This record gives sequence, C-alpha cells and structure tokens, in this order.
Amino acid sequence: MIKQIDRWELSKNLIPGGNSFFSKRPSFTTNKPVYYKKAKGCYIWDIDNKKFLDMSLMGVGTNVLGYSNKKINESVISSINKSNVSSLNSPQEYILAEKLIEINKWAEMVKFAKTGGEANAIAVRIARAASAKDKIAVCGYHGWHDWYLSCNLSNRENLNNHLMKELNIKGVPSILKNTSLSFEFNNSTSLLKLFDKHKNIGTIKLEIKRDISPSKEFLKTLKDVIKKYQLILIIDECTSGFRETICGVHEKFNLTPDMVIYGKALGNGFPITAVVGKKDVMNYANESFISSTYWSENIGFTAANATLDQMSELKSWEYISELGVYLKSKLLEILKNKIQTQITGMKPIIKLNFNLSEEIKINIFLSDYFEKKRILYSPIIFLSTSHTKEIIDNYLDIFNDAINTYLLKNK
Amino acid sequence: MIKQIDRWELSKNLIPGGNSFFSKRPSFTTNKPVYYKKAKGCYIWDIDNKKFLDMSLMGVGTNVLGYSNKKINESVISSINKSNVSSLNSPQEYILAEKLIEINKWAEMVKFAKTGGEANAIAVRIARAASAKDKIAVCGYHGWHDWYLSCNLSNRENLNNHLMKELNIKGVPSILKNTSLSFEFNNSTSLLKLFDKHKNIGTIKLEIKRDISPSKEFLKTLKDVIKKYQLILIIDECTSGFRETICGVHEKFNLTPDMVIYGKALGNGFPITAVVGKKDVMNYANESFISSTYWSENIGFTAANATLDQMSELKSWEYISELGVYLKSKLLEILKNKIQTQITGMKPIIKLNFNLSEEIKINIFLSDYFEKKRILYSPIIFLSTSHTKEIIDNYLDIFNDAINTYLLKNK
Repeated sequence: MIKQIDRWELSKNLIPGGNSFFSKRPSFTTNKPVYYKKAKGCYIWDIDNKKFLDMSLMGVGTNVLGYSNKKINESVISSINKSNVSSLNSPQEYILAEKLIEINKWAEMVKFAKTGGEANAIAVRIARAASAKDKIAVCGYHGWHDWYLSCNLSNRENLNNHLMKELNIKGVPSILKNTSLSFEFNNSTSLLKLFDKHKNIGTIKLEIKRDISPSKEFLKTLKDVIKKYQLILIIDECTSGFRETICGVHEKFNLTPDMVIYGKALGNGFPITAVVGKKDVMNYANESFISSTYWSENIGFTAANATLDQMSELKSWEYISELGVYLKSKLLEILKNKIQTQITGMKPIIKLNFNLSEEIKINIFLSDYFEKKRILYSPIIFLSTSHTKEIIDNYLDIFNDAINTYLLKNK
Repeated sequence: MIKQIDRWELSKNLIPGGNSFFSKRPSFTTNKPVYYKKAKGCYIWDIDNKKFLDMSLMGVGTNVLGYSNKKINESVISSINKSNVSSLNSPQEYILAEKLIEINKWAEMVKFAKTGGEANAIAVRIARAASAKDKIAVCGYHGWHDWYLSCNLSNRENLNNHLMKELNIKGVPSILKNTSLSFEFNNSTSLLKLFDKHKNIGTIKLEIKRDISPSKEFLKTLKDVIKKYQLILIIDECTSGFRETICGVHEKFNLTPDMVIYGKALGNGFPITAVVGKKDVMNYANESFISSTYWSENIGFTAANATLDQMSELKSWEYISELGVYLKSKLLEILKNKIQTQITGMKPIIKLNFNLSEEIKINIFLSDYFEKKRILYSPIIFLSTSHTKEIIDNYLDIFNDAINTYLLKNK
C-alpha cells in the first residue's frame, strides 16, 4: 500500500502544490494523515481507516455544525434528488437572501457566489462602481484575486501581518500597483498615514476581528476616516461570521458596514458565499457584469438555508463561544509557567502563539504526540457544535501530558 | 398563489437583477416559468407543478447527461454521506486530475476551481506569470472578472461580437485599460493589427469554436502569430468541452494549447471547473498565491469523475452530436422558403439566427407557442443524452406547426 505522504508527493506532479487549497497541504510533520475517507461530527477517518478526532481546522473553518450534519445532508440530498440545477431558478436563492437580510437588519440586498475569493471580488467591484473610485484601503486577509494581491506590488511584505507571509504575486498585473493599499490592524497611525499619502481612496475593506479585537481608539479612528472621506465600508466575515454572533463580529463593535461578506461556515462545508449590503450600494451590481453559471446551482442555497436554521435553533455561536472560552482558560492554565504562550483568535477559534524561537519545534512535537493519540493537532483550533465538553477535557488531559513530555525532553 | 413573474419582481428587491446568474433571468416573454421544483432527464417541473420539456439551455450548458442523472447523483450522495469536506484532502481530487490528463495527451497538470470565471482568472494569472508579460490578446467570452471586462475600457463595444452586447463594466479599474485586448474571431486582419499596434503581448486566449468554426486561413494566422510572438495559448472550453469530442474542440483543429479551461458540463451540473495544462506553464501556479477554501470540497471532484466515466461509457459527445446534426437539418427543412434563418453553433448546440428584423418578434411568438405545449423554447438549444429521437421528432412537429401559425398571423 502506498503511504499517504508518498501519494501526496505524486500528486504534486499532477496538481501544482499537490492540491487546490493551500491550508490543507501537509505542513508541520510528514507522518500526519493527508487524505480522508469519511468524516462525521468532529471525527475524520483517513484513507487507511484510522479514526482521528479533529482538534484542528474543522474543514478550515467550514464546519461549525460538524461534519456530515444529518439535517443539512438531508436537505441537500433532497435537493439533489429533485435536481440541483435546471434552466430555471431555484426559490432557495431568494429564501436565503431573506434569511441573510433578517439577521443583518441594516442590509437590504444580497448577491451570491460559490467561493470566498469570488465574494470578495464582487464586493470590491460593487464598491468601486458605487464610489466611482478605484483605490481601496485594505486590512486583513481577502483571498487570491488580483485586486487583493496587488497590495504587495509596491512591497512584497505589505500583507505580511494580515495572515499569510510574503504572498507570491507573480502574474498580478504590475499596473495595479497602488490601487489596493494596505494598513496595519489596530494601528491608527498606519491608517491615517495611508489617507494622507494617497488621495482618491473610495473604499475601506477589512476583517474587523481575526486574532485580536480592535481597540476603542482604532475603532474611533476608523469611523472618523470613513466619515471624513465618505468611504464605502466592506467587512469581510468569511472567517468571523457565525462564530460569536449569528451574523458576525461587526455588530459587536457598533459598525454599520455597506457590505459584509460571508463564506466558510455559511453552508457548513457546502460551497456558498454571499455579499450582503445596503440597497443603494448593492444596486450598483446592476451596472456591472457580475455573473457565473454555477452561482445559480441549488446545493449551496439549500445547505445555507438548513445551516442558518440549525444555527438559530441551537444558538451554535453561543455554544462554541462558551466552549472556546473554557478551552482557552484551561490551555492557559496548563501552559502557565511552562511555555511562554499567547492565545489569540476569536472565542471559538483558539490560536496558540508559542514563543517564536521554539514555535516550529513545539508544533511538530505536539502534532506527532497527538497523532499517536489519534487526534489531529493544529495551533489553530476551530470549534464546532460536535465538540463536547468531555471531548475537550480529554484533549486537555492529553495536551497537559504532551507539554510535560515536551519539557522533559527539551529542558 | 403569487404568480412566478410577480415573485421574480419581488426578488429583484432582494438580489440585484433578481438572481445571481444573468442567463437564467426571464427574458423574452413574461409568462414563461421562472422557478423550478424538480427536474429529471430533459424535463423540468416548475413550482406550480407544470411539467415542461427542456428544449432550451439545459442548465445553460451544464447537463449533457440530463438532469438528476442517477449514477452521478448516487456518487455525489455517497460522498455527502461520507462528508463532502474535512480538514484533510479528498483522493477524488488527484483521480480527477489523472482523468483530465488522460483525455488531454498533451497536458500534464491540472488546477481546480468551482466556477468558470475563477478557472479563467487562474489560467490568466498563470499565463501572465509564465510569460512575464501582463498583456493578453482575447477573443470570445470568458466571464465577469476584471481581466476580461477590461477589454471594454477603451471602447464599450469591444466585446460586442464575443457573446454579450455592451457588457457593463462599472467598477473595473480604469488603469487596466489596454491590458486585455480583443480581436475578432475568424478575422486575421484584426488579429494581425492587434499585434502590430500593441507590443509585449504574452498570451492569447480564445474560444476556438462557439457559433462557427475557425477558417483554415484564420487558424494558420493564429498559429503563425503564436509562433512569432512566442505566446502562451489558452483555449476556453467551458462551453465547447465534451460536446463534439470527449476533451473539446481544440483537438479538431490541430491546436496544442498551453492551457485549456473546462466548466459547465464537466460536473453535469455540480460546480467544478478545471485548468488543464502543460507542466512547464502550470508550475508557475506555485509562484503565485492561488487558493480558495471551497476548491477542496469533494462534491465537484466526485461529480466530475462520475460524469467523465459515464461520458466515456456512452460516448455522449457522439450521441448528442448526431442528434444535433439531425435536428439542425430538419429545422432547416422546416424553415426553408419560409423564414430566412441561419443555424450556427456546435453540433449539439443549435443556434437559430432569425432575420434580425423579426428576431425578437418570432422568438416571443415561439416561446408563447411552445409554452402552451409545455415545452421550454429558446433560440439556443443544448442537447443532452436524455433527448431521444422521438422527443426531437415531436419537437420538430410542433416547431413546424408554430412556424406555419406564425406565418399565417404575420404574413
């Protein structure tokens, strides 16, 4: 039998990088599983039939309601049996629009796509049309499209503190230099400097919370700048949406955006993304050609409708947030006086930031240690409603043992 | 009960334009069905439970193997029951890559996405990286992204003869003017002029056949230009793929592309698209950040694998091509000496081009006439393996009656 990692190496000859999605490439260690056979709740069976608890990325943030969620699967399978597509439209599309407007009281219109990168590019197109200005101020991570990566044309390190270090940008037209302009999160000086230096910025686009919360002072500067320059405000909730509130984190900071973007958890693993916005801005979509065949396909709408219903019923954001607060506090207890660690992220997204000097070493150790216990480890943990307190407590026990073993071996 | 067309009007308040995909917006007449409840084979039930034969767009080109295809649905449902997503990768991804390389002997690598627009933008990014030149010569229709619509920045009519008239481009950065440069299909002078006028073009991207075949002379000019300027050649087979041959039309014209793009029929209605290319070009994808969460989702891979298997088994391209040739010849017989009509398209994609002066009038008449017979009419017919000769003969009888009735009323 061919080893998974060897199969992965072969795959690199067929697919650049081995797969289509960076964040699922095997990274820290060579003996973690690479391919899955099935998944249920928070468990994954790899192609060698080994069962693992997923204490890592849960589909890279897609599965708040667990893998292979019964009710959502039933809805989707029913829509497939009735055909997921036809020459006519599915009513699920406007039903989903209604639901998204219901949870975003400030919004009136919605536009759908299949991936986060697309939804971000749609919002940018609409904002540029509405503001009649091409320049955009950007903070945070917003995908692979030209408009975003062009931030790095003037300096390869511009986006370094926004999620991914030194993003490769070969093939992005050089003429786009200085159309998208990055500023640092929670750094008012950086934000103000940008607007002093560049005239004609029409849009500001950011993730309002990923690793840490915006400071009061930064929020105030943000609001002042938006008002002063009459900016279109786009908040990307692809990662943050449905985690701490049903709609996303923007409502926690008293921000009224012109557009909000949802992806990831919206369809609980079924591809669907959305731009939700104010009517006066969204209507500019009618003045620009923004259309794609598969955006009308029905699985995404159906899955998102079933996901939103179940999230509302369970108040999933409350459950995963409480569990995350508990997990974080217990992890800090274990690590206290042992390994210098900062824990950031959102309530249900725990990010372990070990001391930079031993970060790689400890993550490889933990990955190996947990693999033997049949647990997928990652320094970033996405929690789901399938994670019970019992599962978390068991994880914490093993984490405690792992840290003690690491210290014994390395100190 | 609210009428479908009224429901559609209400939907425009929620979604710009009423839905996410232009080509499914009700256009010619106001009393055609708008929304579907279920579909099977080449039949659609609208939300008022009326059953229609689809002699129109078959999902706008997505369903060569018919709606709700049993075997493909079984594969997809099985993959959903095992979870369509996890933190690990699906083996279906490299299996699909292998299949696509198998049917494109000149190619070695594949990159996947969910929509046609995305796949086109990926190919453009890779081509720009590989050629180290940003300028692209363009012919045909290639989606909604900035790189393509920028053709219209220098003149709103540049793309008029490529599929959609006067595409709206508000929000496309004006600085992209003259990065994508359009030329006319089957017009060698137009192609040569473009390269005389603009230096530093690195890529040529086209649909090699949509309405009509390329002439020998145009093909020769194309090959000469590619050789002279050492261009990267991208052929967009989103619409033409799997229609006349298993891989697409490029092999009929003895063209060896650097990259080919598949969409539409690849997943028989399930969202999946692909860029298939030569290794030396495709490897440039590793030098550019091109990644999206939902590209790793498993339904698309599974559906495409099942679709390609079934297409190969049935030789679906031969079946639909033969049926199309028959339908075209019979339509011409009916129309001969009655209404001046040109029929273009591909073998299994019939496009009726009525005399321009009465085109709108006759299409509205036919749409109404066919609706009463519970048939969805369109001047563009996409054939599927669900369309039998009996169905086509019945359609032809009604078409004949319709034309005679039209002439009685209008001549």
